[in-house]
Amino acid sequence: MHKGRLEAFSDGVIAIIITIMVLELKPPHGFSWSALDPVWPTLASYVLSFIYIGIYWNNHHHMLQSAKHVTGAVLWANLHLLFWLSLVPFVTAWLGETGLQTIPVAIYGFLFFMAGVAYYILARALVAAHGKNSQFARALGSDLKGKISVVVYAVAIAFAWLLPIISCALYVLVAIMWLVPDRRFEAVHRDPEPATADTQS
Amino acid sequence: MHKGRLEAFSDGVIAIIITIMVLELKPPHGFSWSALDPVWPTLASYVLSFIYIGIYWNNHHHMLQSAKHVTGAVLWANLHLLFWLSLVPFVTAWLGETGLQTIPVAIYGFLFFMAGVAYYILARALVAAHGKNSQFARALGSDLKGKISVVVYAVAIAFAWLLPIISCALYVLVAIMWLVPDRRFEAVHRDPEPATADTQS
Amino acid sequence: MHKGRLEAFSDGVIAIIITIMVLELKPPHGFSWSALDPVWPTLASYVLSFIYIGIYWNNHHHMLQSAKHVTGAVLWANLHLLFWLSLVPFVTAWLGETGLQTIPVAIYGFLFFMAGVAYYILARALVAAHGKNSQFARALGSDLKGKISVVVYAVAIAFAWLLPIISCALYVLVAIMWLVPDRRFEAVHRDPEPATADTQS
Amino acid sequence: MHKGRLEAFSDGVIAIIITIMVLELKPPHGFSWSALDPVWPTLASYVLSFIYIGIYWNNHHHMLQSAKHVTGAVLWANLHLLFWLSLVPFVTAWLGETGLQTIPVAIYGFLFFMAGVAYYILARALVAAHGKNSQFARALGSDLKGKISVVVYAVAIAFAWLLPIISCALYVLVAIMWLVPDRRFEAVHRDPEPATADTQS
Repeated sequence: MHKGRLEAFSDGVIAIIITIMVLELKPPHGFSWSALDPVWPTLASYVLSFIYIGIYWNNHHHMLQSAKHVTGAVLWANLHLLFWLSLVPFVTAWLGETGLQTIPVAIYGFLFFMAGVAYYILARALVAAHGKNSQFARALGSDLKGKISVVVYAVAIAFAWLLPIISCALYVLVAIMWLVPDRRFEAVHRDPEPATADTQS
Repeated sequence: MHKGRLEAFSDGVIAIIITIMVLELKPPHGFSWSALDPVWPTLASYVLSFIYIGIYWNNHHHMLQSAKHVTGAVLWANLHLLFWLSLVPFVTAWLGETGLQTIPVAIYGFLFFMAGVAYYILARALVAAHGKNSQFARALGSDLKGKISVVVYAVAIAFAWLLPIISCALYVLVAIMWLVPDRRFEAVHRDPEPATADTQS
Repeated sequence: MHKGRLEAFSDGVIAIIITIMVLELKPPHGFSWSALDPVWPTLASYVLSFIYIGIYWNNHHHMLQSAKHVTGAVLWANLHLLFWLSLVPFVTAWLGETGLQTIPVAIYGFLFFMAGVAYYILARALVAAHGKNSQFARALGSDLKGKISVVVYAVAIAFAWLLPIISCALYVLVAIMWLVPDRRFEAVHRDPEPATADTQS
Repeated sequence: MHKGRLEAFSDGVIAIIITIMVLELKPPHGFSWSALDPVWPTLASYVLSFIYIGIYWNNHHHMLQSAKHVTGAVLWANLHLLFWLSLVPFVTAWLGETGLQTIPVAIYGFLFFMAGVAYYILARALVAAHGKNSQFARALGSDLKGKISVVVYAVAIAFAWLLPIISCALYVLVAIMWLVPDRRFEAVHRDPEPATADTQS
């Protein structure tokens, strides 16, 4: 199966997720600096979510770029990832409204824990589609960052009942870790092998 | 006619349908577990609709993948399918709000009955475009699953006046039946014939 | 300039226009047939708008399919068309709410008058980009339907002050006239000339 | 890295930004001309934003058309630009509601100042990806318009505390300056060099 439509559909869903969050930003009723006071928390949560979704798009882009074809299992693993990402606007809005409270902070962590798991499943489904000794599998390697993320999120969820601020610090830590795009795939693309010669669109 | 834009447009519409449903999820006013109570039914209906729309996207993807070209009739048959799918968020929200009542359950079934009919019409329009003896027609075969779905939905609508829970069980049954992607088309793709060699993007 | 991104962007905007209209459909507060009473006018206006936008997408698809390249003027002519189409949900909602009153009916006609003019301008910009004797110009021909539409809309606007029902009948008339896709372009595509050999994607 | 998905994702986000603004237009409660009175300011701000976003899409289209490949830095520079553009609907709605007041006018200018900076960074990232002596760098030239825009926006922000109407006049001035698409890139495309022969989709 070609991967073009899977990429296009994912782009569409992620583009909508990243943009509809701005609908939460209501124009303030006044024109002084203080009129903007209620906007800042929503804006902050919007910035955070924008970066998180941007990270996932970037990594999704890198991983799919190296893929040569997709299977039915990949289609469903991808939809599973998109499902958890689609809940980001809802949970971030809740976090922005309530501040650093145990339940919202824990659920926020749970959401990204599940998104991390879904990303890991997608990577495995792609490895299965290409073979364990394929160029794709070598490019992905041990997927160490993916595994670390999921562990850190689990720790962060536990901290929500002790000290929610630590949980949030851990969330930011994972974000920073992912902010650097996967150089693995770029390295493979510079290989002499004509792997990327197929017009991927 | 090329099929690229039909796929891109369908991807866009389906991506929007699957994502705008999340706008129904309002952040709760509190930070305890009980604050989440009013969210669960909406979330459940969101999960259900996400899966249903995902199924249609997957099957649409498989069917169009095997198509070589489209006609004016296919464009309209596709828009007809997208119309019924676009009503999914509205009807699912109603079902989630009212629970297992006769009218909402019946209309929910009617919606998917019409989507099933529209999918069947689209399949027929594609067969007409490729010829009755084409590789596409052979791949599609008798479209047994499509015919069964429509019949089961009709039965489920009738049950809404007797026992709505049976109707819902039948809806879930059809969903499970479709959850498995159409292996028919994948089989054809492994054929030695250079059918998928055209870089469709 | 390649036409791929112009098509993709137009697809995106039109897909959003055709889908956000469904957000106007609010789930009714009840589960009897009568609970659906306030939904029918909104649903009717949604169906009408869906068909109108579908017509424009179909004709846009046909016209761009025959185009070989685009210019800066074409990009702006296309954005101009998308602007008028983007107002369709707003005006249709107003018409659905107020019924057959002079001002809404006239503004509804004015909107489609402007969309018709914008489509005509886009066709001219594409002819200018390909040359008056190009295959594209021959395929487009005299664009009789485009000219008739604009005249009929002007007449319909005038009738809004006399008998709004006649205006609406004229709107439906134009819709039916456009429902048949442009066979002109399909004919050209069956030409032996290798015109569509460029991978349009 | 291929640029196809970066273009597709940007198209998606920009298409959504340009379209969701129409959701601010609420159907008036009446059917006389005066019922439209509260709509005009919102409509005016919608038209203005539509043009601004259209300008950015057009220039983005032209610049990316000349690019041959993208890097991880380009992906992030592009997301940065999309972030500032995504705030356009929010700030324009505020400006439309409050009129020519110092704070909204200054923030409006700040937003486009940042979008201008982000566009400049994106251009630099693309130059870095192609090399200082590449065809792309020659096509971009000194990017004079980009530099002028940022300076004019800075001046306009200062004027918001003196005479907000001057700020707005400067915003319109920059818009007009950009309305003309970048002929530089089109010129390069007419070069005999087979630079654009790769099927970019």
